Amino acid sequence: MNIAERLAALRARLKDLGVDGFWMPRTDEHGSEYLPPHAERVAWLTGFTGSAGVAIVLPKTAAVLSDGRYTVQLERELDPKLFERANIMEVPASTWLAGRTKAGMRIGYDPRLVRKPEKAAMAKKLDAAGAELVALDANPIDAIWTDRPSRPALPVRFHPTEYAGEDAGAKTERMGAAVAKAGADQLLITAPESIAWLLNVRGADVPFNPLPLGFALLGTDGHVRLFTDRPKLEGLDFGNRVAVEAYEAFEPALADLGERGLRLLVDPAYSAVGFADRFAAAGGKVIEGEDPIPLARAIKNPVEVAGAFAAQRRDGAAMARFLCWLAEQAVPAGVDEVAAAARLTAIRAKDPLFRGPSFETISAHGPNAAQPHYRTTAETNRRLEPGSVYLVDSGGQYLDGTTDVTRTIGLGEVAEPIRVQFTLVLKGMIALSEAVFPEGTSGAQLDTLARLPLWRRGFDFDHGTGHGVGSYLCVHEGPARISKGQSPVKLQPGMILSNEPGQYVAGSHGIRTENLLVVEQAETPPGGERRLLRFGTLTLVPIDRRMVVAELLDGAERAWLDRYHARVLAEVGSLVDEPTRGWLEEACAPLKA
Amino acid sequence: MNIAERLAALRARLKDLGVDGFWMPRTDEHGSEYLPPHAERVAWLTGFTGSAGVAIVLPKTAAVLSDGRYTVQLERELDPKLFERANIMEVPASTWLAGRTKAGMRIGYDPRLVRKPEKAAMAKKLDAAGAELVALDANPIDAIWTDRPSRPALPVRFHPTEYAGEDAGAKTERMGAAVAKAGADQLLITAPESIAWLLNVRGADVPFNPLPLGFALLGTDGHVRLFTDRPKLEGLDFGNRVAVEAYEAFEPALADLGERGLRLLVDPAYSAVGFADRFAAAGGKVIEGEDPIPLARAIKNPVEVAGAFAAQRRDGAAMARFLCWLAEQAVPAGVDEVAAAARLTAIRAKDPLFRGPSFETISAHGPNAAQPHYRTTAETNRRLEPGSVYLVDSGGQYLDGTTDVTRTIGLGEVAEPIRVQFTLVLKGMIALSEAVFPEGTSGAQLDTLARLPLWRRGFDFDHGTGHGVGSYLCVHEGPARISKGQSPVKLQPGMILSNEPGQYVAGSHGIRTENLLVVEQAETPPGGERRLLRFGTLTLVPIDRRMVVAELLDGAERAWLDRYHARVLAEVGSLVDEPTRGWLEEACAPLKA
Repeated sequence: MNIAERLAALRARLKDLGVDGFWMPRTDEHGSEYLPPHAERVAWLTGFTGSAGVAIVLPKTAAVLSDGRYTVQLERELDPKLFERANIMEVPASTWLAGRTKAGMRIGYDPRLVRKPEKAAMAKKLDAAGAELVALDANPIDAIWTDRPSRPALPVRFHPTEYAGEDAGAKTERMGAAVAKAGADQLLITAPESIAWLLNVRGADVPFNPLPLGFALLGTDGHVRLFTDRPKLEGLDFGNRVAVEAYEAFEPALADLGERGLRLLVDPAYSAVGFADRFAAAGGKVIEGEDPIPLARAIKNPVEVAGAFAAQRRDGAAMARFLCWLAEQAVPAGVDEVAAAARLTAIRAKDPLFRGPSFETISAHGPNAAQPHYRTTAETNRRLEPGSVYLVDSGGQYLDGTTDVTRTIGLGEVAEPIRVQFTLVLKGMIALSEAVFPEGTSGAQLDTLARLPLWRRGFDFDHGTGHGVGSYLCVHEGPARISKGQSPVKLQPGMILSNEPGQYVAGSHGIRTENLLVVEQAETPPGGERRLLRFGTLTLVPIDRRMVVAELLDGAERAWLDRYHARVLAEVGSLVDEPTRGWLEEACAPLKA
Repeated sequence: MNIAERLAALRARLKDLGVDGFWMPRTDEHGSEYLPPHAERVAWLTGFTGSAGVAIVLPKTAAVLSDGRYTVQLERELDPKLFERANIMEVPASTWLAGRTKAGMRIGYDPRLVRKPEKAAMAKKLDAAGAELVALDANPIDAIWTDRPSRPALPVRFHPTEYAGEDAGAKTERMGAAVAKAGADQLLITAPESIAWLLNVRGADVPFNPLPLGFALLGTDGHVRLFTDRPKLEGLDFGNRVAVEAYEAFEPALADLGERGLRLLVDPAYSAVGFADRFAAAGGKVIEGEDPIPLARAIKNPVEVAGAFAAQRRDGAAMARFLCWLAEQAVPAGVDEVAAAARLTAIRAKDPLFRGPSFETISAHGPNAAQPHYRTTAETNRRLEPGSVYLVDSGGQYLDGTTDVTRTIGLGEVAEPIRVQFTLVLKGMIALSEAVFPEGTSGAQLDTLARLPLWRRGFDFDHGTGHGVGSYLCVHEGPARISKGQSPVKLQPGMILSNEPGQYVAGSHGIRTENLLVVEQAETPPGGERRLLRFGTLTLVPIDRRMVVAELLDGAERAWLDRYHARVLAEVGSLVDEPTRGWLEEACAPLKA
């Protein structure tokens, strides 16, 4: 089947189901950021392979909506005779759809792919247009996708307490008590990262995130029912704590719990609405409240924090080897973005604890770096030529921690205005690194610190300043973040967050400098009244001093940079080969006075 | 009737109405901050006269909940045999009530005094406890309060376009178009400040805010139905634009609109749930959306901004006369807080455009200043003795603008740690005054700037940094504010906001320095890409230089302070008498190098 045939088959299927249209965001039943192939329904139907998007199909028209990162890709990948396209930040899916539905129309959706607030917003808009949103029993794509890949079921491994820091029994007991406190009997878990954290297991079902696909139910006594494909658990003994059931048994189990009149704790932010609906339809009582797992997972225990420091040190050594190679061999040899990214992964892979990249490396030269989420393709691949910048945003999954670092390297002579921007970005990065703030402060309250030096010169960046990072888990992890959006979660000791201001000039260049930070207790000065927190810096990779316009830094900022470089040299220097060490000493020298 | 008899009468009434309890926040049908006497139902029932509180009555127990500002007052005013008390920030009313209700109980409330989100939160908690929240047809207090004062109906005056800057016809047309755009036929208006702004009228029904009590409905064509007590409009000719109806005709009119199947735009943040419910019960279609008036009112037009600058200049002259009197006569003569506040109002009242204080003056010496919302009483009144600070937070309602200024004055020798705190507060105040930020920035994003210098030393303040201020209207005005809470409203040119960081040490002293700011366009520096905004400072009152620890200020901060004082002297100096001018010159001299 080609795309036109797929679309025609879907329209026929929708007709059979008695609906006039279909609305489908790009996600899976687990709310995953990275999708396994069998869940790439939007790509299969439309040809669009971006990581964020919504497909909408109506009898005579269809569309894919995505954000500004994917404007070019939408144009390249979609057949304009079949699909319209729109920027979802300007036209939300509900607005697009409501503007094209007639009164009396019925629009279908898969309730396993949509969270409650999204469903409510869509239902409200359709209702105002006189149309109706209809939950479908099964995803209509699955019925027509005849050569659909099977669900991945790669082996699951225990994540030892030596890295996890808390055994699974303690975690399930602690979280079970929180479920009881919320007045519920069971907790609904559809996010694989919650299962991975709770049971101290890691899998390989999706790229970059070491996750085993599955669902779970956690009882107040800490007992877990794990719904997943049994073969991938071969050889694992969970003891009595965990009962393993088939992946497909999850929804019937929810219906059964509902029939028994139990109370299910559901966090609408962490699960699709269809699961709670299935349970409620069977007679169960849904208790909407906070899922206790994401916050508990975000607060790393001392073993995880120590692991993060250790992993960052070795990752810093890998980055030093890479940056030395880049400066001394790659640029002179005319290496391109693809080759550079491959080399970096190969260097990281020498570490015995390395398990893979933590996301797809952004390896971007000159104008390509102006796209914050740039992905190299055959057509866009550029040689790393002097006279501009090379931005590399990458990370590793190590058994003892997940890393994520961005450096922007000046190649040859770089124009003054670009170096000024680099320095403003650095000032913001330092200001956030140096923040001291009272307990109870949220990341939203600190976001401005990273932007202030840019604002005054008329610059800003259109992405968040920082995201949570897992411990050998997802590189993007909730619930805390540092952004100007509403992120009320209080920062707490042990949370790991990125600090990554940037500046992007379309057609010319992009700059981003990113360190990972860990929230720590700070001492209250004499006379002070509040308990204070601060950040410790985890990342240990030189920042390109040649890009710094030193006059723009004040004394405290210069001192920060020199102190940081001295620490990088002290901690990483002994882990690298002799030539790299020479390069590192030069890269970590103090700024000229 | 004494308090015990009132409580008994209410319980009897509740029994007649078939409910087991009653929940009543201290507010009126208009969501007013300052209540007219007939709406002081919580005070009448319980004896508690604080400005924020919730009364709860159950068959065997009753309580008043308020926030930490009123801990002492709750203890003083409530009879512990009749009422429990609690801090509502620690125990929300819904938690308190749900913890004391038994399954099957019915709890009454007056839907004209509760907004939809408050109702929903309470209903959810009661539901979880197996109890039911029941809307009462009328407030049961009104039936038993036999000597209840009548509703005030003081004369209403037109607010001339010379001060308002836009005539009422243009406003009603502009707002009517916004109602049409929201897909509604009429806008529900229950806030008197919205009526006052929309129709360019001012009244005197409540203290401090120049408001006429009433309700209104605005049609898409700009036609207004105004529901108020007709006698107070005597002599006013609104032309065809406005139809005046009786105050009591409002709810029947809503029911009538509902029966006709019209669509009513309702902003749940700006009206009690009972009005929309009445309309919906009659068959009307409620469209929940943003009330366009609060944002339009917050963005002052050029005439209002010019009026604010003029009013502030005269208010600065009044403050200079007051502060000169304070330094040279009051403190030597042993004047007390009450006398100082009276003197300040008397000085302001000499201005021909003065219409009254914009709120009750906070006149607080030493430990009294540690309460951010201190109110002098006979028992707490203190003489302004040297060796501590005097905090005065006050403002005026002038025809051309509303003012609000706080200064903390050192009396005699003030201990070093207090002066350090004063300087940290000043640094925060300056940082916010000097902020430059891109269009689209909210007040929440800037709040941290005013706290950062305090944080580093282990201090913070537990109130917002800034509130919106009306134009000869409410001194506390939404929707924009500067606070660490969620305030997503974008700052726009013409908005007037306060900038008032503070520091409070219980039992010792309090410090707050407050200027009003107006949002202005700023020039984008060469090479910059974003459109920028900044603040202009409106308030023109010296900041006590003797309290400044100059070594804690950096060069830019010293320059700001000297520039500010030079401007105060230039603009205010010519408006004051000779002795005051001498004092002002000294108060506005540059900091010593």
